[in-house]
Amino acid sequence: MVEILHRVAVASTAPEKVYDALTTVDGLAGWWTSDTTGDASEGGVIRFRFPPGGFDMKVLEASPSGHVRWEVVAGPEEWVGTNVDWSLRAEDGWTVVLFKHEGWAQPVEFMHHCSTKWATYLMSLKALLETGSGAPAPDDVHIAFPD
Amino acid sequence: MVEILHRVAVASTAPEKVYDALTTVDGLAGWWTSDTTGDASEGGVIRFRFPPGGFDMKVLEASPSGHVRWEVVAGPEEWVGTNVDWSLRAEDGWTVVLFKHEGWAQPVEFMHHCSTKWATYLMSLKALLETGSGAPAPDDVHIAFPD
Repeated sequence: MVEILHRVAVASTAPEKVYDALTTVDGLAGWWTSDTTGDASEGGVIRFRFPPGGFDMKVLEASPSGHVRWEVVAGPEEWVGTNVDWSLRAEDGWTVVLFKHEGWAQPVEFMHHCSTKWATYLMSLKALLETGSGAPAPDDVHIAFPD
Repeated sequence: MVEILHRVAVASTAPEKVYDALTTVDGLAGWWTSDTTGDASEGGVIRFRFPPGGFDMKVLEASPSGHVRWEVVAGPEEWVGTNVDWSLRAEDGWTVVLFKHEGWAQPVEFMHHCSTKWATYLMSLKALLETGSGAPAPDDVHIAFPD
């Protein structure tokens, strides 16, 4: 099993604000994909759609103390059964966001792509909270071929 | 052992141009850190310096067919002994860049940070080749605390 790891820190932002951006449909639509529907609270299923496809995530945990964990229940076969894990903590007026996308069976090329793409979406989350404006799909940062 | 994986594709660029940006001091200074010195050819040692510190890399392989591999011989203890590996290939007029930073002993928080930071530097490499202007340190993209 291999995993994608990332970290960003969000300036002048409390963990509760980042938590809201991870656990509400409006919040998620502001940085990951505008086409987000479903129920982003614990036990719910969130449907994220992008021009080329999408993912359904079951919310395994949404703890206001700063931990959110999703299981991919539909999407590309490499993603199904993997988990996306978020940990938040306050530090000197910033919120540190630790991210893991874990449970990949193999370090395939698609995983390389997703790792870089996650980084750009985490920067979008950071920008949303710091400036009020993220870069969710379909206005996301392109890292490769038209994607 | 755990690893950082990334992929970008560079538009309208031949692999030879990306190879030059990885195997010349001027090329490396254009996207990673302006303070790059040393010998970036096979067998050489490259010294990358950033405001908070830096890394020395021994060039284990520099193959014009599209493979470059470095070993970290000095720097933060988590980095020493790890390898940075680049594979390049042409695809439909683009160059696909597959990146691995492998051999981390543990998935520590610093590894999360470095993963996201590498993504921004790969975007800097892509921008340098596509637009003529990258974002090397000290003018790099900040992902967290002043870094």
